[in-house]
Amino acid sequence: MDKARLEAFSDGVFAIAITLLVLDLHVPEVGDGSLAHALWRQWPADASYVVSFVTIGIIWVNHHNVFRHLERCDRRLLFLNVFLLLTVAVIPYPTALISHYARTPNAPAAAVSYGAVMVVMALCFNAIWHYSIRAALLAPGGDPREVSGITRSFVPGPFLYLTGTLLAFVSADASLLVYAALAIFYVASSSLWGRRATA
Amino acid sequence: MDKARLEAFSDGVFAIAITLLVLDLHVPEVGDGSLAHALWRQWPADASYVVSFVTIGIIWVNHHNVFRHLERCDRRLLFLNVFLLLTVAVIPYPTALISHYARTPNAPAAAVSYGAVMVVMALCFNAIWHYSIRAALLAPGGDPREVSGITRSFVPGPFLYLTGTLLAFVSADASLLVYAALAIFYVASSSLWGRRATA
Amino acid sequence: MDKARLEAFSDGVFAIAITLLVLDLHVPEVGDGSLAHALWRQWPADASYVVSFVTIGIIWVNHHNVFRHLERCDRRLLFLNVFLLLTVAVIPYPTALISHYARTPNAPAAAVSYGAVMVVMALCFNAIWHYSIRAALLAPGGDPREVSGITRSFVPGPFLYLTGTLLAFVSADASLLVYAALAIFYVASSSLWGRRATA
Amino acid sequence: MDKARLEAFSDGVFAIAITLLVLDLHVPEVGDGSLAHALWRQWPADASYVVSFVTIGIIWVNHHNVFRHLERCDRRLLFLNVFLLLTVAVIPYPTALISHYARTPNAPAAAVSYGAVMVVMALCFNAIWHYSIRAALLAPGGDPREVSGITRSFVPGPFLYLTGTLLAFVSADASLLVYAALAIFYVASSSLWGRRATA
Repeated sequence: MDKARLEAFSDGVFAIAITLLVLDLHVPEVGDGSLAHALWRQWPADASYVVSFVTIGIIWVNHHNVFRHLERCDRRLLFLNVFLLLTVAVIPYPTALISHYARTPNAPAAAVSYGAVMVVMALCFNAIWHYSIRAALLAPGGDPREVSGITRSFVPGPFLYLTGTLLAFVSADASLLVYAALAIFYVASSSLWGRRATA
Repeated sequence: MDKARLEAFSDGVFAIAITLLVLDLHVPEVGDGSLAHALWRQWPADASYVVSFVTIGIIWVNHHNVFRHLERCDRRLLFLNVFLLLTVAVIPYPTALISHYARTPNAPAAAVSYGAVMVVMALCFNAIWHYSIRAALLAPGGDPREVSGITRSFVPGPFLYLTGTLLAFVSADASLLVYAALAIFYVASSSLWGRRATA
Repeated sequence: MDKARLEAFSDGVFAIAITLLVLDLHVPEVGDGSLAHALWRQWPADASYVVSFVTIGIIWVNHHNVFRHLERCDRRLLFLNVFLLLTVAVIPYPTALISHYARTPNAPAAAVSYGAVMVVMALCFNAIWHYSIRAALLAPGGDPREVSGITRSFVPGPFLYLTGTLLAFVSADASLLVYAALAIFYVASSSLWGRRATA
Repeated sequence: MDKARLEAFSDGVFAIAITLLVLDLHVPEVGDGSLAHALWRQWPADASYVVSFVTIGIIWVNHHNVFRHLERCDRRLLFLNVFLLLTVAVIPYPTALISHYARTPNAPAAAVSYGAVMVVMALCFNAIWHYSIRAALLAPGGDPREVSGITRSFVPGPFLYLTGTLLAFVSADASLLVYAALAIFYVASSSLWGRRATA
């Protein structure tokens, strides 16, 4: 399997999933009421939109970071990648649940569903990376420190999102704040150190 | 026709069809009821989502497998490919029918419509492959065993999906299990033998 | 402007528009009624889906045919191409109108709206091609017979679709038959002569 | 980060956002009434569609114009680009608000939301360009007049869209006319001078 076509297909899924998020923003029916007020009240939907958009953007950056180290891929990797894409493509759904049920008694279930998707997504990344190393798919001559740096950077993901998921049973708002904080932290830390790296 | 642009266009359709599946997952309206319970009850929709996602992923892998053997393409192949893409792009629709009508008296009709699409899809694959061989579109120097391996691997598809389709008249659940089993079997068998192949 | 990026962007729009057509197929609400019967009754929607899918496929083939003759592009061509893409991207809308209003007294208005989009689309193709020739954007060394063959092949498009559009005022069904016949004729004639051409 | 993959991902988002605009065009329910009349009455939705389509087309042309000057990109640029894509991907939403609330007392709020998105989009373009210059991401050997020409051309954007936004508090129609005029002016001026440029 040509790596280029796998990347092109994955980029397509990323681009579509990130763009479909806008379908979760609904035109409010206000009748004679105030649209400005209705738009203001729907800030949880807007916030979920931004957090999910940036999160998919981050996943895309990580996906690129993994695949530029690969020299080739095999069928198993292909299917691991399909499962990763499945979790990415489904993100608009738990985002819609959060938009709809934030600040209601059902917010915890929505926050759990979002976190569960992110835990599986983070596990898929770890599986793809470890499989690539074990199956000798990495390009020879790669910087070993960079490779082990990626290995280390993927370890905390499932645990952090699991923490956010479990937190939802105590407080949905705390859980959502963790998801947002993870996205902000990643962008901020990448940007502080990212200038040196050619990314 | 440049093969690269045909592949890019096909990848686009695959990526979009696979990502649009998420639109079949609807935010349940639970009022004061339990969202967790409603999400739990909609497991048939979740299962159809996963099966259709993996199935489109498999079709994409097969599509790539066919086209990397081709050296060039002509107009007839182009239009055969458009008909294949038609069946792929329509998959979200019978998936939605199954999500909606699973476990109702109308489940058989939904299972038949899904199977019918898959039979036509599998026939299109056979047509594309046989036409490519007959019209001498294959790249010279290809491994004849690999070529005949693909020929053989495409034969059972229409029959297996036809079996699943006909089974729906006896039991919709059995039919859906066949569709899911076909996807699982393909991923499992590819993964067992796929490591050697560079896919 | 890099021709490759323009083609990639255009392919994206074609792939999405052709795949979005599936959103015009709605899951029928049958209650205790028969889903099989409801699916059967919605054949006009299925037929519109197939005709529009094949039509966008044909437009994509033509688009490729035009752009492989170009060596470079300028801003005016870019914007002419944006207008062409606008007409392609909007096709799912008149298709939905036809699906919804076929076999009702409002069918003529739906058929006119579809035809009007196709007339503008066909005019855009002529404009792009004539502008490319006049602005010397064609690759030098192209076969002049092929160039004038494309010029001639684009002339009838606007007239044929205009005929289909005007026919809608007499009979919506006749108009829709013309649209379907144009697609079938194009695929059939391309396939008969397309083998020699490398497309 | 490979510039090619960033461009491919961005092109995907542009292509999807521009094509999703069609989902804002709804099939009107006319019952026994006249579909022709209903289609005529919805001209504000059609006009918003065209303006947003052309505007995204222009943003895409500008995006290409910026990135063809870059030699490489770093993580900060990646995330600035993600924020730009966020504003592009969200455009179908304020477009839907305008379609729905044009010519109602809530039109000003819709026009403000559209303008606010465009102001942030224009600011993102300026940020991307200035950051690229400061971080020495431009390809060496570029024409300095062309570089400073781009710098100058991006300055008015935020102010013009801010003017359009503020105008909405006086008259929503005037505000929408400004948005449309900006798109028409850009296409017209590019087309007058664009022939010399290879764009």
